[in-house]
This record gives sequence, C-alpha cells and structure tokens, in this order.
Amino acid sequence: KELALSPKDDFDRAKLEDLLKQKFFFDQSFSIYGGVNGLYDFGPMGCAVKANLIQFWRNFFVLEEQMLEVDCSVLTPETVLKASGHVERFQDHMVKDLKNGACFRADHLVEGFFEKVLSDKKVAAAKKDEIRQILPRIEGMTKEELGELIRKYEMKSPVTGNDVSDPMEFNLMFGTSIGPTGQIKGFLRPETAQGIFVNFKRLLQFNQGKLPFAAAQIGNAFRNEISPRSGLLRVREFTMAEIEHFCDPELKSTHPKFDTVADLELTLYSACNQMDGKAPEKKKINDAVREKLIANETLGYFMGRIYLFMVKSGIDPKRLRFRQHMSNEMAHYAKDCWDAECKTSYGWVECVGCADRSCYDLTQHTKATGVKLVAERKLAEAISLFVHCVPNMKLMGKAFKREAKDVSTHISGLSTEDIESLENSLKENGEFSVDVNGKSFTLKSDMLEIKRYPKTVHVEEIMPSVIEPSFGVGRVMYSIFEHSFKTREGDEQRTYLSLPAMIAPYKCSVLPLSTNAELQPFVKQLSMALTKCDISHKVDDSGGSIGRRYARTDQLAVPYGMTVDFDTLKTPHSATLRDRDSMKQIRAPIDELPEIVRDLSNGRRTWNDVINNYPIFEQQEN
Amino acid sequence: KELALSPKDDFDRAKLEDLLKQKFFFDQSFSIYGGVNGLYDFGPMGCAVKANLIQFWRNFFVLEEQMLEVDCSVLTPETVLKASGHVERFQDHMVKDLKNGACFRADHLVEGFFEKVLSDKKVAAAKKDEIRQILPRIEGMTKEELGELIRKYEMKSPVTGNDVSDPMEFNLMFGTSIGPTGQIKGFLRPETAQGIFVNFKRLLQFNQGKLPFAAAQIGNAFRNEISPRSGLLRVREFTMAEIEHFCDPELKSTHPKFDTVADLELTLYSACNQMDGKAPEKKKINDAVREKLIANETLGYFMGRIYLFMVKSGIDPKRLRFRQHMSNEMAHYAKDCWDAECKTSYGWVECVGCADRSCYDLTQHTKATGVKLVAERKLAEAISLFVHCVPNMKLMGKAFKREAKDVSTHISGLSTEDIESLENSLKENGEFSVDVNGKSFTLKSDMLEIKRYPKTVHVEEIMPSVIEPSFGVGRVMYSIFEHSFKTREGDEQRTYLSLPAMIAPYKCSVLPLSTNAELQPFVKQLSMALTKCDISHKVDDSGGSIGRRYARTDQLAVPYGMTVDFDTLKTPHSATLRDRDSMKQIRAPIDELPEIVRDLSNGRRTWNDVINNYPIFEQQEN
Repeated sequence: KELALSPKDDFDRAKLEDLLKQKFFFDQSFSIYGGVNGLYDFGPMGCAVKANLIQFWRNFFVLEEQMLEVDCSVLTPETVLKASGHVERFQDHMVKDLKNGACFRADHLVEGFFEKVLSDKKVAAAKKDEIRQILPRIEGMTKEELGELIRKYEMKSPVTGNDVSDPMEFNLMFGTSIGPTGQIKGFLRPETAQGIFVNFKRLLQFNQGKLPFAAAQIGNAFRNEISPRSGLLRVREFTMAEIEHFCDPELKSTHPKFDTVADLELTLYSACNQMDGKAPEKKKINDAVREKLIANETLGYFMGRIYLFMVKSGIDPKRLRFRQHMSNEMAHYAKDCWDAECKTSYGWVECVGCADRSCYDLTQHTKATGVKLVAERKLAEAISLFVHCVPNMKLMGKAFKREAKDVSTHISGLSTEDIESLENSLKENGEFSVDVNGKSFTLKSDMLEIKRYPKTVHVEEIMPSVIEPSFGVGRVMYSIFEHSFKTREGDEQRTYLSLPAMIAPYKCSVLPLSTNAELQPFVKQLSMALTKCDISHKVDDSGGSIGRRYARTDQLAVPYGMTVDFDTLKTPHSATLRDRDSMKQIRAPIDELPEIVRDLSNGRRTWNDVINNYPIFEQQEN
Repeated sequence: KELALSPKDDFDRAKLEDLLKQKFFFDQSFSIYGGVNGLYDFGPMGCAVKANLIQFWRNFFVLEEQMLEVDCSVLTPETVLKASGHVERFQDHMVKDLKNGACFRADHLVEGFFEKVLSDKKVAAAKKDEIRQILPRIEGMTKEELGELIRKYEMKSPVTGNDVSDPMEFNLMFGTSIGPTGQIKGFLRPETAQGIFVNFKRLLQFNQGKLPFAAAQIGNAFRNEISPRSGLLRVREFTMAEIEHFCDPELKSTHPKFDTVADLELTLYSACNQMDGKAPEKKKINDAVREKLIANETLGYFMGRIYLFMVKSGIDPKRLRFRQHMSNEMAHYAKDCWDAECKTSYGWVECVGCADRSCYDLTQHTKATGVKLVAERKLAEAISLFVHCVPNMKLMGKAFKREAKDVSTHISGLSTEDIESLENSLKENGEFSVDVNGKSFTLKSDMLEIKRYPKTVHVEEIMPSVIEPSFGVGRVMYSIFEHSFKTREGDEQRTYLSLPAMIAPYKCSVLPLSTNAELQPFVKQLSMALTKCDISHKVDDSGGSIGRRYARTDQLAVPYGMTVDFDTLKTPHSATLRDRDSMKQIRAPIDELPEIVRDLSNGRRTWNDVINNYPIFEQQEN
C-alpha cells in the first residue's frame, strides 16, 4: 500500500528534484563511479535538515518523556536475528528476467502491470473491476498466489518484455562475517529495535526495575532492496528513530498523559474501511480509543505525539493520515499497527509505523538465550504458597540419558501454573509430555516430586508489552520537502522551500546591499554575533541584486534574512530583517537582531511579535 | 605506538570500568548471546555523553568555521575503495595458532612477547637492550621482518603456547554484496573520508567554485580488527568525526585565523625526538611552524583547534600530546601526520589524527573515474595561447580499429603540457606512445594535428591539497572518562566523574529532601521548567538519604543538583543548588534556578558567578 496507486496530483516533482540536487540537499552516492541504486549522500543542506530533525526528535520524545536513549551496534550476529525471526522471515518475493537475470519485486511487478491495465482505455470495465478486487490484497500475498497471478495474466519484465521466473524468497539483510577466521556470521541490522530488546535487562535495571519506561535509538539500518526506486523513499541504507515503550500488558489501556492528546483530531483509515472500500475518517483520539478502533490509550497517546511531531516538523496536516495495517500485511512481530502516512507525488507514503509488538521480541530472546527478559509486578495480595518441581535424577537419567539434564532444568524452571497443569495430567493420565531441545519427552509420576513450601511472594514476573513508534527519517524529510515546496505568486520560476525555522539548514542570511566596503564591518559583526549564539547562517556578499540573493536563500529554505544597507551606517546602527514566507521586512537595531533570530528559530517569538514591535521596512525586492 | 608500552600508573581501571558498566555508560553488545568482541552498546548515559560531544564538535568546528557537513553512505562499492588504496593496503599482519586456529595481530604478539621479556628480571641487560632497539620499529615492519622476529625469538601463542604461523596479510574491511543478484561487491566504509572525496565536485560547486573550504562528516566506520582489546579503544564499529580541509597547495603555508592559536603551547613529540630516544617538548605553535617542525600554518591551525576542543571537552591538558608519525608508520595516503594522543591506563592512545593527505585521494579518484576533481586558480597573468590536439580519425581507425575512438578521446583531452611533450617526441622520434584502456598505442605524426588558437585563459586547474583532522569519538570519550574519574578526599569508595557540564549526560538532578508529599509539587514544577528549557535532568525521589542520592548523581557525572527542602515551602519559594566538583551549595528562588543551570551548562555563567550572587547554603552531606 505504501507507495500505492493514488490519483496523480499536479505536483511538479521534477522541479523540486532539480532544486534538491542543484542545492545539494541530497544526491546519489558514488555517482562519479556510476552510482549505486538505493544509496544517497546528504549534502550540507540535507545534512543540516537531518541533524535538525533528529535534534528536534530527541527534544520532543527523549527529553520530554525522559526516555532512555541507547546507541547499539549495527553489526549483529546471526543468532540474534534468528531469534527475532528476521533470518527466516525478513524477505520479499523476487522474480528474475529469464533472459538477462534482472530482478524485480514480485508485488511491484504485479501492481505495475495492473496499473497499466487500469489506465488502458481499451480494457473492458468488467476486467478492470476484477483487477480492482485483487489490488488491495497484493501486499499480503504468498509467493504461490503472486506466481499464479503472473502466469494467469502473462506478465513479463516491464523493461525487456522477457518472461520472468516464478517468485522466490529473497532475504533483505546484508550479510557479512565478523572476525578474522570468519566463523561469526553476521548481518547489518535491518532495524534498530533489536539493540534495545537485547539490552532490556540493563535498561530495566537503569530504571530501578520499574515499568513503564521507554527506550529510544537513532541510527542507521540496512535493507538490501531488490529494486530501489522512488528516491529517498526506498533506499538500502537509512536512518531510523525508534522508540520501544515497555509496559505492563495489563496497564496498557491507560496512559497518564493521554489527556494531553485526547482531543486531537486525526485522519484514521481503519482496516475495516480499507476492506470495505470506504474512505478514511476524521476522529478525536479519545473517541477512537473509546470505540476500540485504536486498541488502547498507550497506542493512542503515541499516535497523538507522532501527529504533533510531524506537524511541527513541517508536514501538512491535510496530507497526513494514520492507516491501520490489515492482518495480511502485518510484519511478523506485530499485533496491531498504524502507519502515519504522508501524501506525496509518489502516493501515500509510510513515514512512521506505530506497532504493538506485544511481548514477541522479549519472548523470542528469552527462548533463545535462557535469560529471562521479564519485569516484576507487585502482587495486590502476597502469595504464600510456593510450588516447586523436584526431578528424580536417577530415574530421569535412566529414561533420557544424556538429555536428562536438559529435561530436569526445564521442569525445575516451570511456573506455578505449568506445574499445576503437569500435576493434573499426571493424576489423570499418569504421564505428561514436555518439549525440550525440539524433542518430546514423556514424564512419569515417579520421575519427579511436587513440593509445596510456605513462602511469601510479593511480586510476580511478567513479560512486558511493547509499543513501538518507528520513524523513517529520510521518508519524513522527503515528505517535508514536498509539503514545503512552493512557488511565489505570479512567478512560476521562483520556487522556495518554506521549512519551519527549527528544521531549516540555515536560520538566517546576512547580505550587504552592495559590495561597498563600508558595509563589510557590519556584515562581519552580525556574522560573529550569530556564531556566538550558535545560529547557523550564510553570508552572501556576491555581487548579485538583493532580490536575486533573496531568491537564492529562499531556495535554501533560509527563513530570515538580514540586510546591511546604507542606513546601517547611521547611528544607532540598524539593519533590515526579512521573513521568507511573507516577504515582509522590519528594521531593527543591529545588536538586537541575533537575539530576534534566535528566538524566532526556537519558537520563543513569532514573526507577528516581531512585526508588532519594530517598524515595517517597505521595499520592492525586484 | 598507539597502545604502546608506557610506565603503568596507579590508575584504578577496574573501579572506573565497574562504574561505567553499573551505570550503563556502555557495555559489550549482545552479551545475553555471549557477546561479540569489539562491539559495544552505549546505554543512556554513554549515549547522552556521545550526543553532547558530537553536538559540541559540530558547534566548535562546523558552525564556527562554516564547514560543509555531509552525511554519506556506509555501504561502499569495491571500485571506490580500490581507487583509494584500501582494498590493496588497508590490512594488518596476522598469525594463526597452528593447532586451534586462533588469530593474533602479529605486531601485538611480538610487542607482548618483548614486554614480557623486558619485565623478566632473569633476562640479561644486553638482551633487553637489543629488544629496546627493536621495539620502536615494530609498527612499521613488513610481514617478512615480523616473521623473522617470531622465528628468531621462538614466539608462541600467548594463550596456548602453541606454534604460530608465519604472518599473513588480513584486510580489515567488512565485505558484503549489494543488490539481489550479488554482482556489486561492496564494503562497509573503513573511514568516512572517502564519502567527502567522491563528492568533491558537488561541494566545490556549493561553495561557488572557491577554495579553501572544509567539509566535515560524523558517522560510523567499520574495521574487522583481528583481536579487539582495550575496551572502547580498539573496536570493530565506531563513530568518527572527520574534516577534510581543501586548499590551494601553494597557499597551505598561511591560514587567516592562525593568529588565534599561534601562542598556544602544545606538547610535541617529533619524529626526530622519537628516533633519538628524546622526550616530547613543549612549544608554542607559532614557534613550531617557524622552525618547520609543523609543516605549515594550516596544519598548525588545526592542531591548535584540536587542542582547544579536547581540553574544553574534559581532556586533561597534562595528559595530551601531539606525536608525529615516523615515516615507516604513516598510512598509505598520508604525507605528514600528527596524532593527538591522550594518556590513559592503556598508555598513550591516538584519539585524533591530523594528517596532510596532500592530493592523494583526489588524484586517485580522478584516475579511476576520468572525472577531474580539480579546482580553478586565478592566473596572475592571463595566458593567451591555447593548444589543442585534433586526431585524424581515418588514419587512427585504420591503425587502432575499434579502439580508435578511445585513443582519440584520450588525446583530445590532453593538457597543454602533455601536448607539448607529445609534439617534441613526434619531432624527435616520429612517434609517441599513449596508454589507453591498459594498452599501449603508438601514434605517428600523420595521425594528428596540433592546433594553436589565440584564446585568453585566466585560470588554471589545480588539484587541491587536503588537511584532515580525524577524531575517533569513542577514544576521545574513553579518555575523558579516565581523565575525569575522581575519588572524594578521605573516602576511597566515593568515586565520581567530573565531566564538564556541556558533556555531562544530565545537566542537573532534582531531589526532594524527603518523600513528604508537600515537596512533590515543587519537584514537578522544577522538572517541567527544565524540560521547557531543553535541559536534561534526573528526578530522584527515591527514599535514600540526600547524601546517598548526591553520591549516586555524582557517579552519573551530574554537575548540578537542586534540592527541594522544607524551606522551599516558605514564600518566596526557593531551593538549593549544589555544585558537583566543589560540593558547595547556594540557595536561590525557584523561578531562577532553571536559567542558572542553563547558563552554567552552556558556559554563559561560571559557578563562581553563582556563588557570588546567591547566599551560600551550608549543610553536611552525610
């Protein structure tokens, strides 16, 4: 669905791409070597936007919610990713051109074929209806189902027209080997989340054993996409910002700060509405939770926070919706999932996932390592009976030989509940089966003794539930670029980026009106004062007209511009300040300007405050 | 040399390591799976220190010097790293235990063996002298030389005592393959620098074609160390912060901001002094440049900036020196190199390299791609003759067949200098050989015509020179930890970290004196006010004594602590503020405290300013 069919709008993507490339926001990596698909380098402008977005994310989530941020290894041994399910299931279906070996994602091939058919006027309405029925199910299809469609509709390679192979599985992880002897097989992490899960015990301890808490991580992840496309939207290396909120599964239904987002109105596209071909609906988060459309307050709280973050970062709220995953498209670890999607010229794009991973990952790592990744819950009433299963090693050894030890370890670790069901089974059937090391062992009554101690227990162990908001930083950035790309009224050629000041690469420009040497000292003074306040800025003292220079800084998304003119020479020294979006200008004392820009950039003042406190400066830009 | 022998001091490393692990500054990755050598995860405290250090680096270098920061791909195709020399030469020498296959770095094995011999009282002085002669040369030895030493001294595996193999080359890059068909061989980048070099043209264009400019990059690099050791100091995955300063080679000798560092006194350990067995010397940067000990002002300027950055970050200037590389240990791309080394319990550790890479990398990538990575230099006098070589395609086609086109493209692109040497050769010998596509072609006089146009040229092409300061973020961090690890006078057990406030993970703590409910609202009020100012802080309302809680926050390096006590309840409401290093306290109005901490953290106020403006609060901590 992610990059799915959607009515083409009139957005001029080529124009935006031209600007982003020309001003080196980002561009293809290694292009002097012919480039590599799916790899991009961020230039000075893109890098600054990315750093600002990440800093804002850190303040908005980590700092405000006192999350525990970690920074874990990218290189990950195979054992970890086997336990998490990625070795077996993190894959896409691929078909190969039978003649030249070129590879395609099977679902993209099928979707592309159907899109073409739908836009073909000669095709009968009945056939189109048939295809429209199939389309929403493609993402969740098995390789057999995709293969059937390819054969039935005789789909070929969209590039050469050659026949294609049956779909086969292709694991998306990049493999490598760690150490000189090559004996540790490893992968580049496909998500940052696992680094948090394997550190769960340390993080819980850091939080003094208390739930709930959230951990966060910002870092790179790698996916060997079969056929990268759509610019920054589907790449092989990308930055993620992920949160894992660990909580008692029984307390997920409430969140102490839910009130702060309860009245936000989100556009929700439920799984039901998608199935029924209905449109998304606007709803207050509170109502959606009460109606059980959103599973619980905790999930709803994070959806609200995601919404606020996106809008403050420059996403147009009218082009932002939350789409619920349908059961056939859910990732292997997810129980429920809402994607924050942004509308772009590529269609609706998944930018943030907000998944309920329940206790999937902690359970898997516990099974794989034998290290219990659990927290303690205070019992309402202390329990004073403790049941324990004591194996008879002699009889077990006789029955299970070398595996007796593993079996006895297993039964010694059983929970009270398990012991009781074992006890019942022994009473009724005289035997009980346990699975250890992938084998089944039959226990007889004489092989163990069930003991009951009087012991007071105040806590029980629980496996926490996890809510995971997961941001694709590059996708958010690209959507912000599209949503902030504008053209000046009456001048189609004058494009600009209206990025929020907080996200913009430079906070202001400093321009001398002319190359006259008398203006220089003031330019230098302003630049130094800005540096002292840690405000990134750009001096443009090239000879162009002031209008042309404003237009150039508009393309770099510079929100404010200071101009030193001949009135600056008069005491008290002053300069003009221009707002990119309104193109309005004021005049202010030169000493006050750096602070004004600092306050405007961190949101402590608005342009309206400034306009109301300083004299307007009227001048044509052209 | 890096982790070389050095007199053991009395630093209690185990105590520091215990603190760093307990408080989850960092710890081994995947340890529930048994861990992987050379991989570390940063917990909340380490992650915050790292983020603060990087933010300071960005302000100190990128912002202050208006550098062009980029963010490039980690995945790098083989062709790029072949050109840069890494595929062939980025390797260490390895020996294998002949019985169990365990691998060791040959130079570490030899050094370790010699260290043991030197500390053995039974070994004769003459033999020790012999070894002391060899030791400084080990890092630059060939595999044959190392092999000879191993055989001569009959060195064995230090773990098993088994025989070891002859040294063999082991490339340190992690390999992988990019794309589904596996046809693009790639590596994880071993340094971030190459991403800057391959983007040189875009960056020069962004800088409007002008030299000098500096590009910077912060990101991860990967080296498959043979036997990682020494904690964070030798790891397989690490964050680098690199600067590539591009300048006209003829203008390298001066730097416009050199004055700002000229009078700084650095500890310099020149190659000569190392060879002659002399000690490092203290010298003003200016004097070192005048004496030609430091090659030029540009290199000297960056060494000064590195020094200032390190000291402000918490490195003890007495444990910081700059060591010049000896010619036998220089990296394959470097022409001259000074390492900023920090003294730790592991010896002197290279934390920052400051290398003159000359035009090595740009030349290599130009050769490999045919894309000229050059800048233009204005000529003092315009040149008005332009020479051009016009091939005779008919004769060339006859002589060179299918390759005629490549040969003619090659000679059309020759420089004036090359054309003149070709012309001379044709005059003298009647023929001239050119190498194209790895083959040699013999040109005769009739195959081309040399034309001279009257054309005025104002610029010439130059290949810029590169000065590269390159920071190992993890190594700097670890050195800061050692340099800031302290014990309270009179209490050996009370350890703390005196990190500068700017680097500390939390800027302050908020502690209620007791669990009395009346204090809670003030704790909450302070915490909210701090969050609003983006100040990271920790509330500790656990029941422990105030002294114990201070001790706990001291171990987290929290520089300031606010305590809400029963006097807080009186109007005007006030609370105490404690300075970690001096343990002194003042009392201030509750509304002013967040701003005081903000100013203290960003250096706008000192603790002395605070002490002088607010009443001292006297109270025993224990």
